[in-house]
Amino acid sequence: MAAAKVVATRWIHYWATSKRYRVGRNCVRAYTAMMSPPSKAVVYEQHGSPDKVTRVVEMAPVEVKENDVCVKMLAAPINPSDINRIEGVYPVRPQPPAVGGYEGVGEVYAVGSAVKVLSPGDRVIPFPPSFGTWQSYIVKDQSVWNKIHQETPIEYAATVSVNPLTAFAMLQDFVRLNPGDTIVQNGATSIVGQCIIQLALTQGVHSINIIRDRPGADGVKENLRKLGADQVYTESQLEVKNIKDMLGGLPEPVLGFNCVGGNAASLVLKFMRNGGTMVTYGGMSKKPVTVSTSSFIFKDLSLRGFWLQKLMSTDKASECRNMIDELLYLMHDGKIKYEMELVPFDDFHSALDTALGKQGSRPKQVLIY
Amino acid sequence: MAAAKVVATRWIHYWATSKRYRVGRNCVRAYTAMMSPPSKAVVYEQHGSPDKVTRVVEMAPVEVKENDVCVKMLAAPINPSDINRIEGVYPVRPQPPAVGGYEGVGEVYAVGSAVKVLSPGDRVIPFPPSFGTWQSYIVKDQSVWNKIHQETPIEYAATVSVNPLTAFAMLQDFVRLNPGDTIVQNGATSIVGQCIIQLALTQGVHSINIIRDRPGADGVKENLRKLGADQVYTESQLEVKNIKDMLGGLPEPVLGFNCVGGNAASLVLKFMRNGGTMVTYGGMSKKPVTVSTSSFIFKDLSLRGFWLQKLMSTDKASECRNMIDELLYLMHDGKIKYEMELVPFDDFHSALDTALGKQGSRPKQVLIY
Repeated sequence: MAAAKVVATRWIHYWATSKRYRVGRNCVRAYTAMMSPPSKAVVYEQHGSPDKVTRVVEMAPVEVKENDVCVKMLAAPINPSDINRIEGVYPVRPQPPAVGGYEGVGEVYAVGSAVKVLSPGDRVIPFPPSFGTWQSYIVKDQSVWNKIHQETPIEYAATVSVNPLTAFAMLQDFVRLNPGDTIVQNGATSIVGQCIIQLALTQGVHSINIIRDRPGADGVKENLRKLGADQVYTESQLEVKNIKDMLGGLPEPVLGFNCVGGNAASLVLKFMRNGGTMVTYGGMSKKPVTVSTSSFIFKDLSLRGFWLQKLMSTDKASECRNMIDELLYLMHDGKIKYEMELVPFDDFHSALDTALGKQGSRPKQVLIY
Repeated sequence: MAAAKVVATRWIHYWATSKRYRVGRNCVRAYTAMMSPPSKAVVYEQHGSPDKVTRVVEMAPVEVKENDVCVKMLAAPINPSDINRIEGVYPVRPQPPAVGGYEGVGEVYAVGSAVKVLSPGDRVIPFPPSFGTWQSYIVKDQSVWNKIHQETPIEYAATVSVNPLTAFAMLQDFVRLNPGDTIVQNGATSIVGQCIIQLALTQGVHSINIIRDRPGADGVKENLRKLGADQVYTESQLEVKNIKDMLGGLPEPVLGFNCVGGNAASLVLKFMRNGGTMVTYGGMSKKPVTVSTSSFIFKDLSLRGFWLQKLMSTDKASECRNMIDELLYLMHDGKIKYEMELVPFDDFHSALDTALGKQGSRPKQVLIY
């Protein structure tokens, strides 16, 4: 950290010098290229098991061009999709050699000469999320960076763009929900699941939540209820003849979310009301979704999928930017919360092992730079 | 038939008499109830195996009230859903005792005094389709009956409202198709399947068709190609690594139809292009539809269901009426055709056995009155 500061000071000197030349003496440019500080990054040179192919390396300073912004990263999470990208099994991924990571939060360190809307010290996130956030300094075009308020805790700002945004967008995109409606979901303990519960609550929408059978299920249920879950069941509790008995007085769900597949997806479908929509956004059990013919014909269910990365490539990306602001507001206000473990960036491989499940079920790992 | 004519003549006499009284002497009504001729009908008094619970019985004449129309039926098919209704396994069905059948064509025999738009001799179909068409004379409110042109062969008029309309509505309801697009379907030899091929052709839309492996598959393929099918494959032909090789130069399908389930549904999904929609309207294999998580998330497939009977209860019923007209026109023009077997109504139980599959795979059975 101390070394980085020295470098930073030196870099600012370059920057000030070059700017003075360009502003004050337009006709004669004594051009000094702006360079970022050297940076530490998690890189992989080939696809494979992340604990084998990733290395933390020193990156040489890079030029900050006139439309670039150099950001000192503050925090970035390890998401399952980050792992899948390194493994090479994610459909959209950078070509190795590449720096890992896809979302995060940082502070503007310096800006190129043509950058007007951002200034050093601004808190920013890359949005739409962008490859290579596992890096202490990042230089990218100004269009990548979005200013956010300083007050949001950095671990929330670092993680807002993937899981909470997925929850928010899925609640908006498929069915027009009204206060009093019900949604049903499996994988309710995931961050997306927890955000769905809390976001539904802010809209007056009830939630029925399905979790897997596990030791300590009662404590898990209690935690989800504290977040606002109306009903929480383990899968085995739902092996009943008439699932409508488990509604507990709620209306039948008009919208369902599936991130598990297999039996857990069938349970979501069983709860749903005629004409409802189930959205699949994950497949944690690695089992497919199985649907009876009559669910389609007589129950008129629609099955859809959601992929944030696709949404980002459409004209809905700007709507998503507004959702991010609202999410950060809710996070600042304590209306959206979820558990995370903050890990120093230097302990990357330990955090990675945890994210890979080597320590069993643990909270989201967030790297702090 | 001769007896029926005698009755009919008598009935017309009643009708003329009563009408004269009502029109000419409003104040003093010498009311003579209009009665239909006696009728033969296929009735069942309880749900069960259709060959066990159905009986052909003589029905007593019924009163034709002022808004009623009495129709002499000409033809009505035995559809799988008719069988399911008798079995008691169809979600919407009349309460026994009931007369079988759901669609058909007839000729107006006589009309109630308040009926202005229909006259004896008019060719009519019940639309939306309506329970109880396996009956030689039917008396129902005038709103049930829709006049059609006389020229359509009666076996097509009798069968237009379920299978061809399903095909037409499904091609309209889910995806906006443009000329040059491709659809893919399984169960392509069904009447719906054959209509999909022919209707797609009229819209300049290509079709990829999947049939089950069977003796004589080559002849079946040839017949479907004659109807306009671009590609026809048996399921086993599609057990290939890259199904895109089987497109034969066609664009990837944007819309798929599944009336089989199981492997045949998976083959439809494999063919589909990103963002496509598969519509399930039947489950002939009695196997569910199984879908991978990535089909939903990364391929962005939508899975929907179609049920004509539900569509009829919505405000789309009037659109369907227009589709019927167009279908009848295409049928008259020979642009939609499919094989049927015409069976005298008196041989109902023989036709029923055929429809139940006791003679193996045979064309649609259409009762002729």
